[in-house]
Amino acid sequence: MKFDELAGKCGEWLKGTGPESDIVISSRVRLARNLSEYPFVRRCSEADKRAILRQARQTVEGSNGWEDVEFVDVEPLRELDRQFLVERQLISRELSEAEGPRGVVVDSSERFSVMINEEDHLRIQVIRSGFDLSSAWRDAAAIDDRWEQKLTFAYLEQLGYLTACPTNVGTGLRVSVMLHLPALVITRQIDKVFRSLQKMNVAVRGLFGEGSQFTGDFYQVSNQITLGKSEEELLKQVEEVVPRLIEYERMARDWLLNNSKHELHDDVSRAFGTLKTAMKISSEETMLCLSKVRMGVNLGLITDLEISTVNKLFIHTQPAHLQKLRGKVLNRTDRNIERAVYLQKHLTNN
Amino acid sequence: MKFDELAGKCGEWLKGTGPESDIVISSRVRLARNLSEYPFVRRCSEADKRAILRQARQTVEGSNGWEDVEFVDVEPLRELDRQFLVERQLISRELSEAEGPRGVVVDSSERFSVMINEEDHLRIQVIRSGFDLSSAWRDAAAIDDRWEQKLTFAYLEQLGYLTACPTNVGTGLRVSVMLHLPALVITRQIDKVFRSLQKMNVAVRGLFGEGSQFTGDFYQVSNQITLGKSEEELLKQVEEVVPRLIEYERMARDWLLNNSKHELHDDVSRAFGTLKTAMKISSEETMLCLSKVRMGVNLGLITDLEISTVNKLFIHTQPAHLQKLRGKVLNRTDRNIERAVYLQKHLTNN
Repeated sequence: MKFDELAGKCGEWLKGTGPESDIVISSRVRLARNLSEYPFVRRCSEADKRAILRQARQTVEGSNGWEDVEFVDVEPLRELDRQFLVERQLISRELSEAEGPRGVVVDSSERFSVMINEEDHLRIQVIRSGFDLSSAWRDAAAIDDRWEQKLTFAYLEQLGYLTACPTNVGTGLRVSVMLHLPALVITRQIDKVFRSLQKMNVAVRGLFGEGSQFTGDFYQVSNQITLGKSEEELLKQVEEVVPRLIEYERMARDWLLNNSKHELHDDVSRAFGTLKTAMKISSEETMLCLSKVRMGVNLGLITDLEISTVNKLFIHTQPAHLQKLRGKVLNRTDRNIERAVYLQKHLTNN
Repeated sequence: MKFDELAGKCGEWLKGTGPESDIVISSRVRLARNLSEYPFVRRCSEADKRAILRQARQTVEGSNGWEDVEFVDVEPLRELDRQFLVERQLISRELSEAEGPRGVVVDSSERFSVMINEEDHLRIQVIRSGFDLSSAWRDAAAIDDRWEQKLTFAYLEQLGYLTACPTNVGTGLRVSVMLHLPALVITRQIDKVFRSLQKMNVAVRGLFGEGSQFTGDFYQVSNQITLGKSEEELLKQVEEVVPRLIEYERMARDWLLNNSKHELHDDVSRAFGTLKTAMKISSEETMLCLSKVRMGVNLGLITDLEISTVNKLFIHTQPAHLQKLRGKVLNRTDRNIERAVYLQKHLTNN
């Protein structure tokens, strides 16, 4: 894979063009699938894993209609390249850190990827800019069908698709939406909002999924269980919750504009100033500042910056990206300097 | 006095053109004088004070060579105007807060002023940009001579000039130099340096004199006593100490450039960013940031800013100046907003 080329680009889903993209970063649909003739990954032999990887590779490389797709063998990759794929959200941290034969099929515009030998043999994931679950689901289903033409998935009439983890049995579907909720954080309503969500069978996670910290006011809302529900029901579950979150966040933003506009503007403007003038800056501070700046752009407090630029900077200022963009391995101190240089270059108009 | 006109301008001594002006802001000479036919101010009647004020006024208004000078009657001034003169360093806080007839004679280019009925009947003060005590002293002596042609000063052959406070008896001279010592503060050497100064009969104060906090890394070094010393000896006392302080500060700056240039540059650049992007900012934060920026300009870390602009901003962002410049009384919240607007206007190039 031409990582260095990919590093400078930006996935389709980060363009910030989808519905409600002032608040919804992305909509994601994931399908877990397993090949019927092999045990689950956790019980696979090295040879099994290699065979699964080979089958997956043949499926895309040997067929029409997969021209814009690249197969990436993850096992031989060095850590930096694996981390790069994680930051890019093309593979999970779990796949990156796993051992043995594993890989990922990546769409050139990064609209979808298929992980091979993660927790399940195949994990198809489709990602869209903004709040657009139905189109993400349509695409995921189509990709699923195409794989199923070549491969036999483990499936039982009474249970549905079989998966390594019982929570995925049935549809193997996970529907998730990434939201940017800074105003709910500032007004200290976020915990209350999420407590009410938990009663509605949806889960909340931070930007990089399970176990990661909630950084930069980004939250991922997803369905909790799939068994006994149809794909449409699962989709509907998340689709019903998200508009309420959007509404709460909009109300909180309005409240801030009406009741403490100057504090808000000051906060946003200083964050923008920090990003433009720091000579070294950590990943954490960058996330916090970019989050404020993103809200500032959406509220018209910052007018000379595109949302797509802000979205891109979230990804491009992460450790592996900085190193790929710079073309060499950097320690933490040097990354903080490189990050500041990169931010200045992309945020200062000249 | 045309305060509003004066507000927009800037005293000669702030131009930053004098010797060693990267570190020495200004050199100041003050002479305390009392008219022989009146008791000291503290024991004056209202009528005495009025008579002294009248004599001082007649001295300048009736004579050739005082055309560039204005007499300001301080008693009827509202608090904002008095505070303005304090910020401008044309009068002391004590004169501002005193009661009864009192005034100040102000040179149009603010190279000198003469306070009337402060602690002494007359306090002549001359101020110069940079480290230039001898020229300040020359001017002060000349002004003193001109007043003495018209007035009889309290003087005893054995003691010299008589003054309200015994520490001023003799020459009535106070010699002081305002230094900007941020690197000694950052490297935590400032206390050690000042402890060694105290053994050398020099005193150290903050920007606005006695009792004020040391803000923005500015320190005033002056002689402690005058009795038994000639003017030349007093001048020499301070003139010998200052070059050592300049040397220590230069060494500390060099050390920072050699050992933590990136931290320093980051600190300076972020401070500049804060001043350019804050939408509200306190006087204290402004001083701290301007201090860093001033050092940054002098070390070549900031290249698109003049020292004279930085010097001017120190004065113009103070509360009374902001209100005069804005043309109305502002509360603290509004001043913080006005200050940010003023800083952005003067630091952003467009």
